[in-house]
Amino acid sequence: MLEVEMPIPIAFHARMKSDRSKSRQRAFSILQMTAAVAIQIIMLTGAHADEGMWLFNAPPRDLVKQRYGMDLSDPWLEQLQKASVRFNSGGSGSFVSEDGLVMSNHHVGADALAKFGDADHDYLKDGFHARNQAEEKKCLDLELNVLMSIEDVTDRVNTAVKPEMKPDAAVAARRAVMAAIEKESMDKTGLRSDVVTLFQGGKYHLYRFKKYTDVRLVFAPEQQIAFFGGDPDNFEYPRFDLDVCFFRAYEDGKPAKVTHFLKWNTASLAEGELVFVSGHPGRTSRLLTVAELEYLREVQYPRILQRLNRLEVLLTAYSARSRENARRAKDMLFGVQNSRKARDGGLAGLMDPELFERKTAEEKRLKAAVAGRSDLASAAEAWETIDRAQKIIKEHALRYNLLEAGLGFNSTLFSIARTTLRSGEERPKPNGERLREFRESNLASLELQLFSSEPLYDDFEQLKLADSLIYMAEQLGNHDPFVRKVLGNKSPRSRAEELVAGTRFKDVDFRKSLYEGGKPAIEKSPDPMLELARMIDGEGRRLRDIVEQQDEVKKQAHGLIAKARLAVEGIGGYPDATFTLRLSFGAVKGYMENGKQVPSHTTLAGLYDRASSQEFAPPFHLPKRWMDRRNRLNLGVPFNFISTADIIGGNSGSPVVNRRGELVGIIFDGNIHSLVLDFVYTEALARAVSVHAGAIIESLRQVYDAGELVKELLGGASPL
Amino acid sequence: MLEVEMPIPIAFHARMKSDRSKSRQRAFSILQMTAAVAIQIIMLTGAHADEGMWLFNAPPRDLVKQRYGMDLSDPWLEQLQKASVRFNSGGSGSFVSEDGLVMSNHHVGADALAKFGDADHDYLKDGFHARNQAEEKKCLDLELNVLMSIEDVTDRVNTAVKPEMKPDAAVAARRAVMAAIEKESMDKTGLRSDVVTLFQGGKYHLYRFKKYTDVRLVFAPEQQIAFFGGDPDNFEYPRFDLDVCFFRAYEDGKPAKVTHFLKWNTASLAEGELVFVSGHPGRTSRLLTVAELEYLREVQYPRILQRLNRLEVLLTAYSARSRENARRAKDMLFGVQNSRKARDGGLAGLMDPELFERKTAEEKRLKAAVAGRSDLASAAEAWETIDRAQKIIKEHALRYNLLEAGLGFNSTLFSIARTTLRSGEERPKPNGERLREFRESNLASLELQLFSSEPLYDDFEQLKLADSLIYMAEQLGNHDPFVRKVLGNKSPRSRAEELVAGTRFKDVDFRKSLYEGGKPAIEKSPDPMLELARMIDGEGRRLRDIVEQQDEVKKQAHGLIAKARLAVEGIGGYPDATFTLRLSFGAVKGYMENGKQVPSHTTLAGLYDRASSQEFAPPFHLPKRWMDRRNRLNLGVPFNFISTADIIGGNSGSPVVNRRGELVGIIFDGNIHSLVLDFVYTEALARAVSVHAGAIIESLRQVYDAGELVKELLGGASPL
Repeated sequence: MLEVEMPIPIAFHARMKSDRSKSRQRAFSILQMTAAVAIQIIMLTGAHADEGMWLFNAPPRDLVKQRYGMDLSDPWLEQLQKASVRFNSGGSGSFVSEDGLVMSNHHVGADALAKFGDADHDYLKDGFHARNQAEEKKCLDLELNVLMSIEDVTDRVNTAVKPEMKPDAAVAARRAVMAAIEKESMDKTGLRSDVVTLFQGGKYHLYRFKKYTDVRLVFAPEQQIAFFGGDPDNFEYPRFDLDVCFFRAYEDGKPAKVTHFLKWNTASLAEGELVFVSGHPGRTSRLLTVAELEYLREVQYPRILQRLNRLEVLLTAYSARSRENARRAKDMLFGVQNSRKARDGGLAGLMDPELFERKTAEEKRLKAAVAGRSDLASAAEAWETIDRAQKIIKEHALRYNLLEAGLGFNSTLFSIARTTLRSGEERPKPNGERLREFRESNLASLELQLFSSEPLYDDFEQLKLADSLIYMAEQLGNHDPFVRKVLGNKSPRSRAEELVAGTRFKDVDFRKSLYEGGKPAIEKSPDPMLELARMIDGEGRRLRDIVEQQDEVKKQAHGLIAKARLAVEGIGGYPDATFTLRLSFGAVKGYMENGKQVPSHTTLAGLYDRASSQEFAPPFHLPKRWMDRRNRLNLGVPFNFISTADIIGGNSGSPVVNRRGELVGIIFDGNIHSLVLDFVYTEALARAVSVHAGAIIESLRQVYDAGELVKELLGGASPL
Repeated sequence: MLEVEMPIPIAFHARMKSDRSKSRQRAFSILQMTAAVAIQIIMLTGAHADEGMWLFNAPPRDLVKQRYGMDLSDPWLEQLQKASVRFNSGGSGSFVSEDGLVMSNHHVGADALAKFGDADHDYLKDGFHARNQAEEKKCLDLELNVLMSIEDVTDRVNTAVKPEMKPDAAVAARRAVMAAIEKESMDKTGLRSDVVTLFQGGKYHLYRFKKYTDVRLVFAPEQQIAFFGGDPDNFEYPRFDLDVCFFRAYEDGKPAKVTHFLKWNTASLAEGELVFVSGHPGRTSRLLTVAELEYLREVQYPRILQRLNRLEVLLTAYSARSRENARRAKDMLFGVQNSRKARDGGLAGLMDPELFERKTAEEKRLKAAVAGRSDLASAAEAWETIDRAQKIIKEHALRYNLLEAGLGFNSTLFSIARTTLRSGEERPKPNGERLREFRESNLASLELQLFSSEPLYDDFEQLKLADSLIYMAEQLGNHDPFVRKVLGNKSPRSRAEELVAGTRFKDVDFRKSLYEGGKPAIEKSPDPMLELARMIDGEGRRLRDIVEQQDEVKKQAHGLIAKARLAVEGIGGYPDATFTLRLSFGAVKGYMENGKQVPSHTTLAGLYDRASSQEFAPPFHLPKRWMDRRNRLNLGVPFNFISTADIIGGNSGSPVVNRRGELVGIIFDGNIHSLVLDFVYTEALARAVSVHAGAIIESLRQVYDAGELVKELLGGASPL
């Protein structure tokens, strides 16, 4: 599934809500994948492919015109942009009615669904249906963002950061100017304002968002149909998943009235038909240098996978002990499995010699071109510079990840304690000098998370914390002075037990009292989790400084490479994915695999065939309602379909629209061949997988008796 | 479960049939374990505990007399020794009728059960019942050993290995003298003859075994009742598992007539009653130096667990794709999960500061005593010597494990190819100069494995091989010249696919033709798997030499420490476990945990309660037969029981006997607190878990209609 892994600037990532791309599957097809990828790479046609995760202020007008004969007009683009919604929990979505109805994937809504549940209610598993507005259920900490405008502020940012500055001064200067721009913008417009880094530091754009924090759940199907086939079928195709759910954005306690929303078209899609995807791809690595890719292959991916494997085993074993354990761990376990499959596929790509040879040749060509042009002399050293910075990051990555990125302290209670501790330090500082998450323009979002009433379970917190302390002791060694200090002559499990049992951070009022009391109140508190956060804070900040400084060095060098590439290749291109809004395009298109034609669509009939061929054994069983109502369904309705659009984790929930801008589907996955898209685009076999709009309407009507929702989606005049 | 991990002399272990001790479980009780272990350690009463895995030629006569007032007579010991059976696939068992009937655990028989199966038959899952001799099913490659005699050959071995020899000469000399002793013994007695190393090199004993290679399956229950509660309940107590199966040893095509077999006593056991366990504990680490224990904690255990986690994820995902995949992977997956849980518990013990403080204090005391006695001067340097040798091993451990111990080539086809290759080199050599597995006295056992008609599946072989090649590339780096050579500019998956598709080693006749054709035939064969084995053979042998030489250095030093300990502590003691026959003793005894009394027995009634409290959800569901026949059972019959006997992985299937030598149960597990027994004995909470003899008879009668088996077990006069 294509949920995003939240960006952390380094090595590997603390959060499991997740690149949610996947890669492991039937052994046989794994084994065949690499050869297939190799063929794809060879067959790549370069500039003429359906490639690109384009910026809305630099859309692929020429390419779309040339390949599909269509002109992208400004109003068409504006409509799609403003109907697109970002889920800050890690995904995409869209407005689908004028009354603020938002559609996304079930697996994007999973976080919110899981937080509603308790021992007697498992909404994630069983689904939810509000039959009227009064029944719509307010999410605990979900924030939606709608991109209202983009402004290029590269010059202002780069003017503030002088080339002669040392990295620490440059980091401070960049942080200050970005915070200032954001604060000014927020004060002026009232909108959430983020300066986003593009082209690895080649460009800085100011993104202004309309923000919704009162978001209510309207409808979710059972997880069993949303994620039919489970981990085995994840990142596979053909597929049969109703991976949708519906929320409603509220303003001032009433459904938000929105101007830009998508009208539906439930007709079948023709083979070759042009479609667009508007969503938030989380992270790609296409513009990395060969040395950076090697770092991914040799260090980062193996480490991530090692940790994902251990978490998957930990969570699976915990889940097997009881139904309630399974409920508590389900959302996190899904994220872990999803990331594991995605990273497995990514690593397979990185270990394919063909991919590396191609990347190496490309870099060599660009370096040669730069060497031949005196106007690009400033870029000549850039690769070396990045390599040096990467080496310094590598030296510190392990400790950084454990201490600062949170891998050594895998506990929500710890995260809350640390954020509270730092709020006392950071909030009194001038806006431009704060750690970036405490910048004025981000505080409201941060507080939404910090004061979330998400239920926390002692046993689950202890399990995660103990495991991460063991992991830290393994990685740094039990003799490491820092490890000894953190454990305090206790075993990791005893220490975790003592911390979770002793902390008061489960209590939201306690969090608020410390946050509002500020530094004096925080300093006085003897809370053991706060003590732990205090104990590691200096070292964590020190490591963060090192990493951020080298990241700054890399940004500047990447900026030079980006300029050189533009000068040499003469095209604008698109930046690597950064969880900002992007436009992709492509054709609805089947493919040939192992001599067999894989069709571009599946149907509802195929769902029942697949379940029956697996004897309805989990994860191929169907919810009771789907068993009972089979005869009511028009089994010929398209269920899932594929296209060549360029997507990646974070695109989950992205609307798929046709030339007229009508919603025809919703992205929820990529096939196994798409996992290489992290590093290189290919359209030979890689496909984006969507739920077809027609199947959504058909099942809402025939399986869920959700006539009121269908009416809202289709308006008065149903095309069905 | 207490299946053994086959001994490999180093770092970590290739085989997954497995120390099958377990450790992960409900988070809460894990978290409480460490505090509990600490208490146990404090409460340890030293020499008066039910401690020890005693040699049959040095039994704990004084201790048993002193604690339980019983005299261990020679005939009593001989009867138990010769009724005990070793399963070379990794477990223990016993003769239970004069017609060669052998009882062991279902999970020990799992290997044989799995090898019988095909897409239409899943004997491991569904069980098996031969209603007469004709239906008994011959195992493909199972070897049983019965220990007939023990002879101390320490002096002869040590005389051959001169103190002034360099390690390489010492290794050669020791190998030669051991092979010579074994060959002589085999020629003289016709028995399998192994010189076993005890006390880490302090003693060498010649063990002579009667060997059975025609072994037939008689009865196995469904895995669901044998392993009720699955991974969640593994290494837990209270338990409700019918973990038994029955084989029959044949000689000359007829059931073997045996003199020594165990009579049954199905009566309930009293609290405090003395019981004995006779079995084959696989490996303990109680006599290791502190530096060696630190190596386990810092290097070996984390590495093993990292690999087990990745294998568990790999096999679980493969299994989820279809019922047939699940069948193919089931036995291996069980072994992996079992080892993972055991190692998790072991690492928790190693990370408990109390355990390390105790070990450190003990070592300090012994060193001080040695320093004060001139007659022990030779031992003074031993700890330093071990430490130096351990450091050299550490440097080479990773490559050794990948290249020589097989972790980089996890494929049965590869193992077969390498054994074939080496057979061509080794068999022409004089017996004493061969690699140890090719010594004359072991060849018949080796051939039984090599020519096994165990079914091998291309997809499963590719899956494992590809994953292990990726693992190797991750660990050594993709730039490593050796990795590049092995992969041959292919991705790991393509390379695995090519190797498995291209090799002919699936064909047993092909194996035989090369093995019998010897070096000339092997050299001519272009089989790709053989080519691979050839490619890495030199490097593998080089690493093995280094490791075996340092192992020799450690053996000599441990010999000196063992002598010093004997001189200082004045007691004989018992050696660390080595998968040789040992006698343990203890009392049937409940314990207090979290303020609650845990009873010494469970009953058949408890099985149904546990299943029902978990809503009969897997792994807590019951086979249909057990649901249907509940009313026939006497639910008051004891099902499982616990005792303080000192056991570890490898003891699975060990008979439990009373003072009269009557069989009262069969070991199948230890509780969670027993996982620390690897390093230190404790009887506060650690318990061995057995199936009660009465429950076996009751279920054979009432659930399986196996009257003929009951009759054979109980003879004419049933005590029931």
